[in-house]
Amino acid sequence: MGKKRNAFYAQSGGVTSVINASACGVIETARQNRDRIGKLYAGYNGIVGALREELIDTSKESAATIAALRHTPSGAFGSCRYKLKDLQSNKAEYERLIEVFKAHDIGYFFYNGGGDSQDTAHKVSQMGEQMAYPVTCIGIPKTVDNDLPFTDCCPGFGSVAKYVAVSTLEAGRDVASMCDSSTKVFILEVMGRHAGWIAAASALAGRQAEESPHIILFPEIAFNQQKFLSRVKREVKRNGYCVVVASEGAQYKDGRFIADAGRKDAFGHTQLGGVAPTLAGMVTSELGYKNHWAVADYLQRAARHIASATDVEQAYAVGKAAVEFALAGNNAVMPIIVRKKSKRYRWSIGSVPLSKVANVEAKMPRNYITRDGFGVTEAGLEYLAPLIEGEDYPPYKNGVPQYAQLKKVLVEKRIKKRFKV
Amino acid sequence: MGKKRNAFYAQSGGVTSVINASACGVIETARQNRDRIGKLYAGYNGIVGALREELIDTSKESAATIAALRHTPSGAFGSCRYKLKDLQSNKAEYERLIEVFKAHDIGYFFYNGGGDSQDTAHKVSQMGEQMAYPVTCIGIPKTVDNDLPFTDCCPGFGSVAKYVAVSTLEAGRDVASMCDSSTKVFILEVMGRHAGWIAAASALAGRQAEESPHIILFPEIAFNQQKFLSRVKREVKRNGYCVVVASEGAQYKDGRFIADAGRKDAFGHTQLGGVAPTLAGMVTSELGYKNHWAVADYLQRAARHIASATDVEQAYAVGKAAVEFALAGNNAVMPIIVRKKSKRYRWSIGSVPLSKVANVEAKMPRNYITRDGFGVTEAGLEYLAPLIEGEDYPPYKNGVPQYAQLKKVLVEKRIKKRFKV
Repeated sequence: MGKKRNAFYAQSGGVTSVINASACGVIETARQNRDRIGKLYAGYNGIVGALREELIDTSKESAATIAALRHTPSGAFGSCRYKLKDLQSNKAEYERLIEVFKAHDIGYFFYNGGGDSQDTAHKVSQMGEQMAYPVTCIGIPKTVDNDLPFTDCCPGFGSVAKYVAVSTLEAGRDVASMCDSSTKVFILEVMGRHAGWIAAASALAGRQAEESPHIILFPEIAFNQQKFLSRVKREVKRNGYCVVVASEGAQYKDGRFIADAGRKDAFGHTQLGGVAPTLAGMVTSELGYKNHWAVADYLQRAARHIASATDVEQAYAVGKAAVEFALAGNNAVMPIIVRKKSKRYRWSIGSVPLSKVANVEAKMPRNYITRDGFGVTEAGLEYLAPLIEGEDYPPYKNGVPQYAQLKKVLVEKRIKKRFKV
Repeated sequence: MGKKRNAFYAQSGGVTSVINASACGVIETARQNRDRIGKLYAGYNGIVGALREELIDTSKESAATIAALRHTPSGAFGSCRYKLKDLQSNKAEYERLIEVFKAHDIGYFFYNGGGDSQDTAHKVSQMGEQMAYPVTCIGIPKTVDNDLPFTDCCPGFGSVAKYVAVSTLEAGRDVASMCDSSTKVFILEVMGRHAGWIAAASALAGRQAEESPHIILFPEIAFNQQKFLSRVKREVKRNGYCVVVASEGAQYKDGRFIADAGRKDAFGHTQLGGVAPTLAGMVTSELGYKNHWAVADYLQRAARHIASATDVEQAYAVGKAAVEFALAGNNAVMPIIVRKKSKRYRWSIGSVPLSKVANVEAKMPRNYITRDGFGVTEAGLEYLAPLIEGEDYPPYKNGVPQYAQLKKVLVEKRIKKRFKV
């Protein structure tokens, strides 16, 4: 048993409706281990909060507020799109991190993010060793894109999957009821830059007697306008209407996105948007069907009101496990969800070294996508179905969810030198 | 007390997440009065179902299925965008309707729709008298746009209002947590062709400690690009981010819509869409802020999963009242919601003659909109707040709502002549 040290937790990258459930798991578990973990600081706006020495003292938040994080979407402490460069090209950033950690006696670093963040957590653990200031670094998986390797699924995905399945079901019924004299084609654009997991989840709408969605467009399958349009036509002829769910990352064979906005974000990723109106334009000009389109954008990943109970539980569990792993002496690992081989869905927590996770993207297996490239196979549905199981409603007041309101008290700075981020 | 006659119910125009709750109210109340009302037929795809003599025999549906309509969105029997012309220019349509009613001994006509439908119901009652085939015609209010006169609110509106308030709250938190290093402006486009009620409902997100939305764009207030952009800039400078909710019908002083798609629907209304991306384009080119946008489109009016309990109750109540009015000998009236003058929100059912309702649009009172034209006043919030009160969740199975599955058994046709719609 080591001596009591402080801990630092930060949220990274695009937020989800359950990332705060992971924060809740981390903080509540740390509070249960006050003999080992002193103060738990949270980065104000993620890792840049550490670089700027802007640390939120979570001990100032009541137990009720921390408990409310479990049902609160988005990043309660602030997140950021800020990727630390590699050790060679920007060693100063890592040195600054370690300096801040040292100044606040931080011995545990919990980094809640996607692939890029797991990479950063890994590098920080290496840097700590190099600088003779050992820090236990634990990654906590989070991404709506479900594209982290090793883990059966990523906390954040199940809830956006549920949102997309429910929205597709509901909008599909809307179109079905109007198609005789009005809209015949409805196109819903969902997130998923390189992996079609979110779009695939829409297929869960159709598991029962529902017909929607008729066509799903995945980034994994090269888009062919002719094939797409003739399929739309076939579905309209057959059902009277056609519901299309398109990944924002859907692309042509040559890698051009269907709607490339041409802008890039801080990580150098192309910023997408506008697939749905682009497809709608094709339908209008080539087929002439009246159509409508929706772009869910942030609504989908913020939709805590329709979160998956399974996802919330798993998000909390990986946060809890992160602290338990750290206290058990593990370093540079990430808790993962392990699906048990059982008829009824069961899962447990495992772990994987951060060195293996970093910058590996998990695309959808080809056998989850139907042969024609427009649907999800039974194998895919079996994988997806349990992830949206269960409802976990937030409390409401005045007709809207009552989400946590944090005080966000910053710790007094101890380093004179400011660091420009 | 008259003799026992059959009844006809039809859904009209854009569907809502609670129009089936009205259907449920009509059918359950009719079933409770079997001594007066024989069969209750529903139009297959609305009024065109009557013109084509495609009548769904609702008696073939179980009590459980009818009860499930209360939590089922969209038009369960099918709706249509089909406006009967005036009596002079297309008398044949009205004659056909009466002919079909006569063939199936229909003495009650319940028409569930917006302003256009109330107008139709009124004309049918006149035509019946002219043709010496009296039909009791009762309108049942329905519109997400909340633009019917006399009624305090329109069933359908409260639920879309709740969806928009909750979505704005959630997406607003998303942007707040990321704005330090990423998206600074988020734009949500919502429905509302001529009235800003739906956009206004987003202000309910901000009633507590929430900051969003910062800017609301109403069709009632002339859009001024310069004013809009300088307000966005001010909000970003002040809060770090800015959330905008824009009505699809937001327009310039000269009546041009911000994004006029140039298409028209069956009623000759301009078909809108694309306000959000248009505004986003302005923000990008003039201010350079990173931004995201969402277009909720059908998702908002189909979102039964987040319906307002108040709205569901009122939708059921107007359906029930319609049948009760008919049985009490009223004709050519529409049940309305009457808000009681009390501190706690209370309402009752009143009625208004259809002749007064037809083709009158209720816009937002100017005193509900703040002086600067970008927000909702306390008076507006007081009006809106009770309409989104209460949650009324549908049952779930396999992670998605279990909505009613109807058999939709058609009645055998009795008229040889087919009618082209």
